[in-house]
Amino acid sequence: MQESRKAIVLLSGGLDSTTTLAIAKAQGFECYALSFRYGQRHVIELASAAHVAKALGAREHIVADINLRVFGGSALTDNIEVPKQRSTASMNEGVPVTYVPARNTIFLSFGLAWAEVVESSNIFIGVNALDYSGYPDCRPEYIAAFERMADLATKAGVEGHQRLRVHTPLISLSKAEIIRRGTELGVDYAMTSSCYDPEPDGRPCGQCDSCLLRAKGFAEAGLPDPLLQRFMRQT
Amino acid sequence: MQESRKAIVLLSGGLDSTTTLAIAKAQGFECYALSFRYGQRHVIELASAAHVAKALGAREHIVADINLRVFGGSALTDNIEVPKQRSTASMNEGVPVTYVPARNTIFLSFGLAWAEVVESSNIFIGVNALDYSGYPDCRPEYIAAFERMADLATKAGVEGHQRLRVHTPLISLSKAEIIRRGTELGVDYAMTSSCYDPEPDGRPCGQCDSCLLRAKGFAEAGLPDPLLQRFMRQT
Repeated sequence: MQESRKAIVLLSGGLDSTTTLAIAKAQGFECYALSFRYGQRHVIELASAAHVAKALGAREHIVADINLRVFGGSALTDNIEVPKQRSTASMNEGVPVTYVPARNTIFLSFGLAWAEVVESSNIFIGVNALDYSGYPDCRPEYIAAFERMADLATKAGVEGHQRLRVHTPLISLSKAEIIRRGTELGVDYAMTSSCYDPEPDGRPCGQCDSCLLRAKGFAEAGLPDPLLQRFMRQT
Repeated sequence: MQESRKAIVLLSGGLDSTTTLAIAKAQGFECYALSFRYGQRHVIELASAAHVAKALGAREHIVADINLRVFGGSALTDNIEVPKQRSTASMNEGVPVTYVPARNTIFLSFGLAWAEVVESSNIFIGVNALDYSGYPDCRPEYIAAFERMADLATKAGVEGHQRLRVHTPLISLSKAEIIRRGTELGVDYAMTSSCYDPEPDGRPCGQCDSCLLRAKGFAEAGLPDPLLQRFMRQT
């Protein structure tokens, strides 16, 4: 079997996964974008994901329905208050309250299923070990262990056709470096949604961890955030 | 943190997973039974699972909705014909058509999420490497790789509280041995559903791989199948 140039790209519609899709495309992959409806309180990021998938020329975009809410356990799926106005230093202490149990494992498992069906051996995921080190399943050693497990789980692995590769192009980049790389590749970040607690029209709260990290990233990259500019123009 | 005696038990409502739940209970675990509605063509096995969970005293039973049909790729989620009347020898050649891509990886990932929420470090799964060796994700080396990956994925693993253990009590048992073990533990197999293609009332087709393996198992165990007796009484 010939080496496939297809790749599954996990796409939340946020800044990181959008940049990841742009990188996969720039590397010549035919991209299958995969998003999840997982009981999160807002679905604005899914609208962003659909917009991004189309704008960046994904071959297909699938939204898989899974309901992590049945298990509870996190601010993003429960009704626990999203923390606001924390210093970026304090975000890195321990595992954050917005952690969703086994989220990346579940997401990568679905990616693995789709990869098997389209006969791809590549999954892209926009995890980042620097800016948000509190998530255990964003670390290189976790990604490597997932690859090993996957090679034992699938027909392709067992039959020896191809080994799964989980690509993590952002893993050692700062938020500013991610933004610069995406900007070089022509990404319009006005399409992306990062806020944990946005207004119904998609306007970011500006105070949750994700908004603060995004603002810090654009500041350090020396670039304006086009998403904020969009809402400023509207006001 | 004290060693938890809670266990997540993956429960399809079939013969193997029902026996697995009985074994977990006999080992003193407080059992959290987890089933999946995953786009399969029939839901009779979910009714069996609910019945079994109650009868065997599971603390909770959750049915997680996931839709593997979005990816296609198998007779159990697609409309490909389920193979009938094959010899049990020919079933072991290659990966069967009823293989669902990455199924056990997805199921175990959901188990991992629930385990994290209830602070359990035990997952039971009724995989079996002997009777149905065509599924790559039923082998001990796959299970061991999942455990290693999980220990790197979770709060408990990273903080060093406890390591995940995936229990596979059936992995080296023949179907006849599974049936004998369950019968010793008082399992009423009339509750269980194995058929890939049952009638609307739950009556097994008697001809798919799963029905044939079940019949062979009861024959070799020297026991009647109470499910067949139930339908014979009704006719």
